[in-house]
Amino acid sequence: MLAEAKRTVRVPLGDRSYDILIGPGLIASAGREISARLKGRKLAIITDENVGALYLPAFMESLGQSGLTATSLTLPAGEKTKSFEHLISVVDHVLEARIERGDAVIALGGGVIGDLTGFAAGIVRRGSRFIQVPTSLLSQVDSSVGGKTGINTRHGKNLVGVFHQPDLVLADTDVLDTLTPREFRAGYAEVAKYGLIDKPDFFAWLEKSWRDVFAGGEARIEAVAASCQAKADVVAADERENGARALLNLGHTFGHALEAYTQYDSARLVHGEGVSIGMVLAHQFSARMNLASPDAAARVIRHLKEVGLPTTLQDIPGEMPTVDRLMDAIAQDKKVKGGKLTFILTRGIGESFIADDVPASEVVRFLEEKLGQ
Amino acid sequence: MLAEAKRTVRVPLGDRSYDILIGPGLIASAGREISARLKGRKLAIITDENVGALYLPAFMESLGQSGLTATSLTLPAGEKTKSFEHLISVVDHVLEARIERGDAVIALGGGVIGDLTGFAAGIVRRGSRFIQVPTSLLSQVDSSVGGKTGINTRHGKNLVGVFHQPDLVLADTDVLDTLTPREFRAGYAEVAKYGLIDKPDFFAWLEKSWRDVFAGGEARIEAVAASCQAKADVVAADERENGARALLNLGHTFGHALEAYTQYDSARLVHGEGVSIGMVLAHQFSARMNLASPDAAARVIRHLKEVGLPTTLQDIPGEMPTVDRLMDAIAQDKKVKGGKLTFILTRGIGESFIADDVPASEVVRFLEEKLGQ
Ligand SMILES: NC(=O)c1ccc[n+]([C@@H]2O[C@H](COP(=O)([O-])OP(=O)(O)OC[C@H]3O[C@@H](n4cnc5c(N)ncnc54)[C@H](O)[C@@H]3O)[C@@H](O)[C@H]2O)c1
Ligand SMILES: NC(=O)c1ccc[n+]([C@@H]2O[C@H](COP(=O)([O-])OP(=O)(O)OC[C@H]3O[C@@H](n4cnc5c(N)ncnc54)[C@H](O)[C@@H]3O)[C@@H](O)[C@H]2O)c1
Ligand SMILES: [Zn+2]
Ligand SMILES: [Zn+2]
Repeated sequence: MLAEAKRTVRVPLGDRSYDILIGPGLIASAGREISARLKGRKLAIITDENVGALYLPAFMESLGQSGLTATSLTLPAGEKTKSFEHLISVVDHVLEARIERGDAVIALGGGVIGDLTGFAAGIVRRGSRFIQVPTSLLSQVDSSVGGKTGINTRHGKNLVGVFHQPDLVLADTDVLDTLTPREFRAGYAEVAKYGLIDKPDFFAWLEKSWRDVFAGGEARIEAVAASCQAKADVVAADERENGARALLNLGHTFGHALEAYTQYDSARLVHGEGVSIGMVLAHQFSARMNLASPDAAARVIRHLKEVGLPTTLQDIPGEMPTVDRLMDAIAQDKKVKGGKLTFILTRGIGESFIADDVPASEVVRFLEEKLGQ
Repeated sequence: MLAEAKRTVRVPLGDRSYDILIGPGLIASAGREISARLKGRKLAIITDENVGALYLPAFMESLGQSGLTATSLTLPAGEKTKSFEHLISVVDHVLEARIERGDAVIALGGGVIGDLTGFAAGIVRRGSRFIQVPTSLLSQVDSSVGGKTGINTRHGKNLVGVFHQPDLVLADTDVLDTLTPREFRAGYAEVAKYGLIDKPDFFAWLEKSWRDVFAGGEARIEAVAASCQAKADVVAADERENGARALLNLGHTFGHALEAYTQYDSARLVHGEGVSIGMVLAHQFSARMNLASPDAAARVIRHLKEVGLPTTLQDIPGEMPTVDRLMDAIAQDKKVKGGKLTFILTRGIGESFIADDVPASEVVRFLEEKLGQ
């Protein structure tokens, strides 16, 4: 058996370039990795109650051993924490800790903690140093890379935030062992997404090797590193999402609408599950528009189902949304121009593209069929 | 008499470049100027109750005449409006108005409205189009140019915000006629500041012509345009305040400490008054450190006094601060490194420089003398 090796993916963004370290044991070696790269000695750690209970003591100890001092703030777990209310708490904690130039703010947790903390770091003193220690699969392969930060409001998801790149990302692949299977699967939806966007070979490898990725070890490190590399490539080409970066939204227009409809209630739906259903819908809608063969959609459904992810609207527990409600959420999330929507559609596995002229009326009809309304 | 001409100062920042239009009648011609430059048709205007009562109807009418539709939100006037609470209201208003790519958020008011609205525009959808219509002298010559936005917290002034450049600035010099003399003088402190930083001829011109600037007409337009040009030059050279831009903080380290001490209570002190006293202290401190002749400080005091600005700590009504309180505020505002402070000091009129090794102990002794403590 091969020894498990640490990988480094570099995100090349000029003077905002940074490294993503991926591998086992990074919580234990965090102090060494951070102190080698940071001028300051002060850190403010933001975490949530689940992750904090499991990893905060070991993380703090590792920092202390490298001569770093850290304060910490533990917030409730869950999507509702991405709010103005908690943003204010984080900002207050960071100011109270007197984090200054050279020091850093650290997000220790999943995408919720990463998005919220990154936003706070982006606005304290108009931009403070920021380190991501993503602990969920979703945050390791997606949200911790690329500098998008934000919170939700009653108007929709991630409508308020800034672009603020981290200075370092430490993705410890061991900590994924304590994720619930449901959260692991949700993150896996984003891994599969990179294959579906433009890497058909990676998707085929996942169809074959997903059990190893779930089990841990080399295949997991490989899947995380390949995903980070895929995201880094897109981000480097289009940091502020003016063009090609929109491809990363495959499955997300439908997904976000479903999240809004279920009011970010994670008992009903978590982000990656919304993306899973959204990717299936994007492939089915593409087939309906005669852009792709129905076989592609069938293959996507087969793989996501096998993994245990939801693939239809009916898989969401509770009352079904109405078409109107979903279309409202879609209109707020994306811009509608003269009855046309921007969507990520596909010509087949790994052949996604940006379509900016999708008739809203076609989407309505498609959803009516799906919902039997 | 010369006809009053409109001036344009361009702020050259690559794809974030923009124009500042300066002159009379710009509220009335706002619709024309904006519609000529904007793709979208929707605007969300944020103003305060003083400015709203005076100018919102005419401004809305001008927009309407050019086929633009606008919603408006009127907030309380005063520094306390630069808070998280009001930031949330502005963000909510902008989202409710469904301002999208191509549309814009407009700040109609002084620096408070400009800083708050600019921050909101900077975070809604991670950056929305933003137009400044500064109505106070201070905002026309300073805060509306350069993209610094922010709010205050209990930890200090402007500690939370983003860099977000406007797409257009409309500085109508007529509206300054309705400012209270006290607010006009406060803004004038920032005009004088540009002379004191590195334009001795401009300072000499102001000593001679300040009554014309206060009266209105050509001299006022000239003073506003020269100030905008001075600020644009500095901003173009150092957009994110890593270096030379710090010179704009002449008088501001002491000034911000005084504002923090008086708890942003404008009955006691407004920003420009703090800057006025701060510039005097910076010149006096420079003389005390044998960097400049005491004559320079005397000349600064003479001019600012003549104009009617406060020049000493004793000019602030109410209880005097203690040295400890002021040093605390200075330490939170600026970074203290190993007992050393960064200050803007001077070698004479128009010869300011960044000193990053000012012993805190010397500042303490200087303030003890000034306060007789
Ligand atoms: N910024 C971006 O580019 C981007 C991209 C994709 C998603 N996101 C955002 O990410 C969020 C979703 O991220 P998420 O799925 O990580 O959600 P999350 O942060 O809520 O984490 C999911 C759950 O797993 C728990 N958890 C995390 N790590 C754990 C571990 N190692 N062991 C045990 N439990 C652990 C958390 O406490 C939480 O209960 C959404 O808000 C989404 O909008 C952002
Ligand atoms: N962003 C920057 O780069 C920057 C630079 C300097 C100052 N500032 C900020 O600017 C703020 C101060 O700006 P300000 O002095 O304009 O304060 P302000 O916005 O409070 O305006 C001062 C007063 O004048 C009133 N007013 C404004 N225009 C008027 C008009 N035409 N007629 C009658 N009344 C009018 C306002 O209602 C208010 O009561 C401070 O918060 C300061 O931190 C920011
Ligand atoms: Zn996602
Ligand atoms: Zn100022």
